[in-house]
Amino acid sequence: MKYKHIFLLTSMLLLCGISLAQQNASADFKPAVTNQPGKQFPQVNGEGRVRASINAPQAMKVLLDIGGKKYDMIKDEKGVWTGESLPQDEGFHYYQLNIDGVPVPDPGSLYFYGAGRWGSGIEIPAADRDFYALKNVPHGLISENIYFSTLTNAWRRCFVYTPAEYNTDTKKRYPVLYLQHGSFEDETGWPTQGKANLILDNLVAEKKAVPMIIVMDNGYANKPTDKADTGNKTRPLSVFEDVMIREIIPMIDAKFRTKANRQNRAIAGLSMGANQTMRIIMNNQDKFSSIGAFSGTANYPAGDVLDPATFLDGKYKDAAAINKQFKLIWLGLGTKEPNPFPASVGAFRAMLDKQGIKYIYYESPGTAHEWLTWRRSLFQYAALLFK
Amino acid sequence: MKYKHIFLLTSMLLLCGISLAQQNASADFKPAVTNQPGKQFPQVNGEGRVRASINAPQAMKVLLDIGGKKYDMIKDEKGVWTGESLPQDEGFHYYQLNIDGVPVPDPGSLYFYGAGRWGSGIEIPAADRDFYALKNVPHGLISENIYFSTLTNAWRRCFVYTPAEYNTDTKKRYPVLYLQHGSFEDETGWPTQGKANLILDNLVAEKKAVPMIIVMDNGYANKPTDKADTGNKTRPLSVFEDVMIREIIPMIDAKFRTKANRQNRAIAGLSMGANQTMRIIMNNQDKFSSIGAFSGTANYPAGDVLDPATFLDGKYKDAAAINKQFKLIWLGLGTKEPNPFPASVGAFRAMLDKQGIKYIYYESPGTAHEWLTWRRSLFQYAALLFK
Repeated sequence: MKYKHIFLLTSMLLLCGISLAQQNASADFKPAVTNQPGKQFPQVNGEGRVRASINAPQAMKVLLDIGGKKYDMIKDEKGVWTGESLPQDEGFHYYQLNIDGVPVPDPGSLYFYGAGRWGSGIEIPAADRDFYALKNVPHGLISENIYFSTLTNAWRRCFVYTPAEYNTDTKKRYPVLYLQHGSFEDETGWPTQGKANLILDNLVAEKKAVPMIIVMDNGYANKPTDKADTGNKTRPLSVFEDVMIREIIPMIDAKFRTKANRQNRAIAGLSMGANQTMRIIMNNQDKFSSIGAFSGTANYPAGDVLDPATFLDGKYKDAAAINKQFKLIWLGLGTKEPNPFPASVGAFRAMLDKQGIKYIYYESPGTAHEWLTWRRSLFQYAALLFK
Repeated sequence: MKYKHIFLLTSMLLLCGISLAQQNASADFKPAVTNQPGKQFPQVNGEGRVRASINAPQAMKVLLDIGGKKYDMIKDEKGVWTGESLPQDEGFHYYQLNIDGVPVPDPGSLYFYGAGRWGSGIEIPAADRDFYALKNVPHGLISENIYFSTLTNAWRRCFVYTPAEYNTDTKKRYPVLYLQHGSFEDETGWPTQGKANLILDNLVAEKKAVPMIIVMDNGYANKPTDKADTGNKTRPLSVFEDVMIREIIPMIDAKFRTKANRQNRAIAGLSMGANQTMRIIMNNQDKFSSIGAFSGTANYPAGDVLDPATFLDGKYKDAAAINKQFKLIWLGLGTKEPNPFPASVGAFRAMLDKQGIKYIYYESPGTAHEWLTWRRSLFQYAALLFK
């Protein structure tokens, strides 16, 4: 009897403890800032757990699909399904619901382009979110710019950020950063979930960055008729480098008050965009003076030791020339990024180190291959540009 | 036996006939222009039927919900559900799928804000679609403009269209049209499904309209603490008129190269926006010289005879003064609009007619209370402005 009582007491305390912990965790669930107007779900709590909820009395099984895991949701007596995820990393994540086996956007969230589709996204407030917060500072504009691309025989679009003062001082000319998204993303990434405009508005307001124009175009640019042989399969041949050099830059220099020279032109990209821009800058050293490679390098996905004599046709061979040529080579990576990113970025850094090529390396604490890594990278990188 | 054979023959011919008709209708189904990149469904055929399809092997019931009707979709042996709607009106429609009782966005479509939510939309190509087509003409920019509104104590956003020449001739100043969306829509309506930019790009390229700036703001503007008593319930008091006059117009005149006077300032809106802008212009005759009311008037939803002595505090009493004061009063309506729109617009027109107030009235053939009516209205109205 004695043992039984102790066991019961322990169980009760344990249950109370769990119950209290659940209540505490539940207590601070709030609608996500990425919700559609007026929508109460999804919600996020202080631990970064996501709670989804949907009215589906006739559904058999509803799941919350986030961060690579599917969580069972539970139906109440009214037919409303609710479920919670484990704590998610700070920052922005794509996610979806799954209703009776069908992945669908959550009707409660705003929609974002990523993972190759328009679908749900959710913001887990980061401790350092102030740097990309909407604050009472002068705000620049983001302009949607439609153009016909002769090289791809298609209409394309870029978003162009102009700093707040651009519209008041109509004589001044500005340096330009060309900023690229990652794979399965598009030109909406940086101006939406990337918060490029707010990051720059805040940096400029605090005089931590030079007012600049930012051009965000689409990294996918193919001549549909041309196929590149990549071993056992062919894929459309990317002409993005040509589009950037021969179409986008001349158009931007004609349409906006730019400082149209290499000293005042920088390039950066994330993941696939880092890989692309690293190739573009080495082939066009007369066009750009600075590069930022966020979570990606041109040797991706390989993590093998790089031979500067052969890598990118030997473009990193002459350290002295590179150190003289470029104002800034900047690399960033999240501490939680999965392979092959740490390995391939590591191999690239090892080559730069061995060659004695100067660069800045930044690690985003506690973030994976996601947008908070890239927001922080832009914040760090933009503050160093054009100075 | 003879009758049986005839019956069989008739049945077979009938079945063949149906089958052929279905094949013909099916033959020209094409992915909608409003689809997400690379998505094959939904599709539209020459009759304006919408065919939706989704892979859902475990679902019990899937419906296509469009134009106020729900259509059963049918599962094939692979678990793919496909269904077709009746022919839809030309133009743009909001729609959704319904999976086991849950209304969700179609993962195949792009998403639009309307009907109070971000969700699926589909374009049924209209015979006259050339006027809003993306063509090889100079294109203006649409800028996203964030501002803090003291009156509502909230961050707000407007989209500002500047004509193509705005960025090349940096001295010239432009007239401004303030253009408002309808109820349960927002500031994304006109620059997205409204195609305001393409309509103006095309008009200007053909020299059918004066190059102008268009400002598209959000018609919802409340002081959350103030409630208006509307009989048996209270609702937030709209301060949109104040926001327009005291915040938006001064901001636009400061930030863009406008011709900042009433002769060069017009206003227009659709449905709720027509109602709002009709009130705004009559209260602020020193600010605007032209008004366009698309599918709405300030007497909405009533269809009763209007007494000019009392309607809007007698602002339509003095026909001679109004005819002198305004350059253009323009009304539009779709021929298929449901009541109360024809009745309320009709009652308003009857009052204008009786008073001898000059106006232009346009009817959009074959369209209801939807975006093709409003695209056509903008096309007609903009061509007459600032001349």
